[in-house]
Amino acid sequence: MKSEKSSILGVLGGGQLGRMLIQSAINYNQDIHILDPDPQAPCKDLAQKFTCGSLKDFDTVYAFGQDCDVITVEIESVNADALAKLESEGKQVFPQPHILKLIQDKREQKQFYQKNGIPTAEFILTENKAEVVKNKGFLPAVNKLGKEGYDGRGVQILRSESDLDQAFDAPGLLEKLIDFDKEIAVTVARNKKGDLIAYPAVECAFHPTANLVEFLFAPAEIADSVEKKAQEIAKKVILKLDMVGILAVEMFVTKSGEVLVNEIAPRPHNSGHHTIEANFTSQFEQHLRSVMNWPLGNPELRCPAAMINLLGEDGFTGEAIVEGQEDALSEKGVYIHLYGKKLTKPFRKMGHVTLLDEDIEQLKVRAQRIKDLIKIKA
Amino acid sequence: MKSEKSSILGVLGGGQLGRMLIQSAINYNQDIHILDPDPQAPCKDLAQKFTCGSLKDFDTVYAFGQDCDVITVEIESVNADALAKLESEGKQVFPQPHILKLIQDKREQKQFYQKNGIPTAEFILTENKAEVVKNKGFLPAVNKLGKEGYDGRGVQILRSESDLDQAFDAPGLLEKLIDFDKEIAVTVARNKKGDLIAYPAVECAFHPTANLVEFLFAPAEIADSVEKKAQEIAKKVILKLDMVGILAVEMFVTKSGEVLVNEIAPRPHNSGHHTIEANFTSQFEQHLRSVMNWPLGNPELRCPAAMINLLGEDGFTGEAIVEGQEDALSEKGVYIHLYGKKLTKPFRKMGHVTLLDEDIEQLKVRAQRIKDLIKIKA
Repeated sequence: MKSEKSSILGVLGGGQLGRMLIQSAINYNQDIHILDPDPQAPCKDLAQKFTCGSLKDFDTVYAFGQDCDVITVEIESVNADALAKLESEGKQVFPQPHILKLIQDKREQKQFYQKNGIPTAEFILTENKAEVVKNKGFLPAVNKLGKEGYDGRGVQILRSESDLDQAFDAPGLLEKLIDFDKEIAVTVARNKKGDLIAYPAVECAFHPTANLVEFLFAPAEIADSVEKKAQEIAKKVILKLDMVGILAVEMFVTKSGEVLVNEIAPRPHNSGHHTIEANFTSQFEQHLRSVMNWPLGNPELRCPAAMINLLGEDGFTGEAIVEGQEDALSEKGVYIHLYGKKLTKPFRKMGHVTLLDEDIEQLKVRAQRIKDLIKIKA
Repeated sequence: MKSEKSSILGVLGGGQLGRMLIQSAINYNQDIHILDPDPQAPCKDLAQKFTCGSLKDFDTVYAFGQDCDVITVEIESVNADALAKLESEGKQVFPQPHILKLIQDKREQKQFYQKNGIPTAEFILTENKAEVVKNKGFLPAVNKLGKEGYDGRGVQILRSESDLDQAFDAPGLLEKLIDFDKEIAVTVARNKKGDLIAYPAVECAFHPTANLVEFLFAPAEIADSVEKKAQEIAKKVILKLDMVGILAVEMFVTKSGEVLVNEIAPRPHNSGHHTIEANFTSQFEQHLRSVMNWPLGNPELRCPAAMINLLGEDGFTGEAIVEGQEDALSEKGVYIHLYGKKLTKPFRKMGHVTLLDEDIEQLKVRAQRIKDLIKIKA
C-alpha cells in the first residue's frame, strides 16, 4: 500500500454513492477527485478536487482522468471511450471500460448472460415498436430500452395487447415477465490480484409505482440452497466479466426456487447501503479496496438490518425539509444518512436510514414505522 | 431538527477529533466550520469552511464565531474569554466557556472535585518549585502544572527526593501517586434538554514512556460494582459541571476497588475512538447530537473491541509512510483510521485501529500483533 499512498482516485459522478465512498476513503488518507455535471453535487465540499463537467463528453472525461492514477465510477452512463483511451495510456480504470459499455446496453447484457450460461429471464431483441407489436404472443413481458435506462426509467411492463401502444420505439428487448417470489441482490467484489468475496443475499422491496427500492432486508429470508445458488451466480457474473471492483447483482427468486439475474450494477449500489453499519466491511470501503487493489474486507453481516430509502415525497418540489428525523433518532439502532441535496422532487433519493435489530420480525415493523415517520418535503 | 437544519456548527480545532466529527456530521447534512492554526490541519479539505488562525487569540476566535450558530471545541486550550463573549451575545457554546476555563486549570479542577464530593487522589496545591520541595513528605506523587498540560506534557512523577530537581517551578499541584490496579474511562453525554447517557467503561493501557494511550479495551474487565460506581461518578461530574456536550472521565481503579477521577476532557476523546465501530452510537455522533440538542443515541457496546493508537515511530521525523497496513487489512474486524497528517514525528498521533472480536482473550493477542505490524515511519 506504501507505493499507492499518494495515488489519486478519480470518480466519475459525485452523487450520494461518491459521497459515501469519500466517507470511507477519509479513513485511509485516500485523496479523491470528483467529476460531476451538477455544481451542487453531494460530493462538492468533500472531494480533494471537484470538477464540474459532463460525464458523457469525451474531452471532459479524458481531461479529468489525466490527474488520476486510478479511475472508477458511481454511475454507468459515462463516456466509456474516454475511459478506454485513459486505460490504453496506462491509467487503472475499474470497472474496466468494456464492462461499462456492456452495462450501458441492456441488449448486450442479456446476450452476455445467455452466452455464459448465466440464468436470466427469456428474452427477444426488438429494434422498434413494430417489432414489439409483432411479438405480442410473448406478453406479459417487460419492455426495456437498450440504452439510457436508469432507476426504473426506460422500463415498462406490457401485460396485454392493450399496453402495446406505450411500447418503446427504439432498440430494446422484451423479457418474459417473471412471476417471482422475491427480489434479492448479492454484492460481489474482486481486486486485481483476483481475490473475490460475496456478501450475503439481501431482499428488496420495491416502491409500487416509482420502481425504486423502498425497503431492503438483510439477511434475505430464503432457503440455504437459494442463498448458495445466488452467491454462485453473482460470483460467476463478475468472473465472466473479468471485472475488478464491486458488482451488485439483482436477481429474481421464482416460486419454484429458480434464481434469475435481473440487472447488474458495477459500482456501489442502493442494495448495499445497509453494509455501512450492518456488515464487517461496507460496500463503499470494499469498492475502494477492490479498485485500489488492497486486500478485500470480510463481507459477513454483524446484525440483521433493514434499509429504508428516503425519497422525496410526491407532490413536493423545492428546498428540502426533513420531517420526523428527531423521533427516529431517539430509537436504538437507527442510522440516518442524508445525501446533502438541497432540492427535493418527487421520488428523488434524498437519503436512507439503516435500522439494526436482532429480531427480524421486529425489524420489519420498525422499518415501516420509520418510513411513515420521516418525510422529505419542501 | 427542522429549524436547526441550516444552522452552522463551528469547531475550534481541526485535528483528528474534528475530522471524525465531520465524518459523522456528513450523514446529517450538518455544515461545519473549522478554525485551526495549522494550514494543513486534518480537517482542511473536509470542512465547509476552514479558517487558519490561532485558537488562543481573542479576536480570531471571536471573529470565527460570528458565522456560527453553535460553537464547540476539539481541544481545551482555546480562548475561553472570546467564547464567553460569544455566549453572552446569544451563540450556543458547548461545552460552556466556564467549563473550559475550569479544565484549563488542573488546580481548579481538583478543587471542583473536592467541593462536589467527587472521589479523586489526595492533593496539595503548590505555587512554585520551593513549595514542591517543602512538601517532600508527600512523595511519591505526581507533579502537575496547573496550566498548559496536554497529552502527558506538564505531568511528571516524583518518586523520591532525588526527583525533586525536575519539579515544575510554576503554579501546579502534587497529587498522591495512586498504586492503581486499572485505568478506566467512562464517556458521558448530555444535551440542553438534560438527557444524559453513559457509555460502558473502557480499560486503557498507557505507553510506558510517552504517557499516551497505547491500547484500549472495551468492555473494561472490572467487577459490576466498579462499573456501576464509575458510571455514577462520570454522570455526577457532568451534572455538577452542568455541562452540555460529551465528557470523557478517566479514572483509576485502586487495588481495593475504589474509583478515583484522574482527568476529564469535555470533548470527543482518545478513549472513545472504538465507539465508531463497536458501539451503537459513536462518540463523535454523540457529541454532535449533544451540542445540537438532538436526542442522544444509544451508547451500548455492539461487540468487544480493542483500540490501538498509531503513534509516529520513535526516531522518525518527516513525510509519513504507513507500513504493515496491508497485512492488517486482510484480517476480519480491523478498521484503520488515518488522520490525514502528512508529517510524522516521534509519538505523534497519526491514526488508530479498531479491532472487533467476540473473544476477549483473542482480542488482546490480536491487538498486540496489529500494534507490532503497523508502523508509521518516514
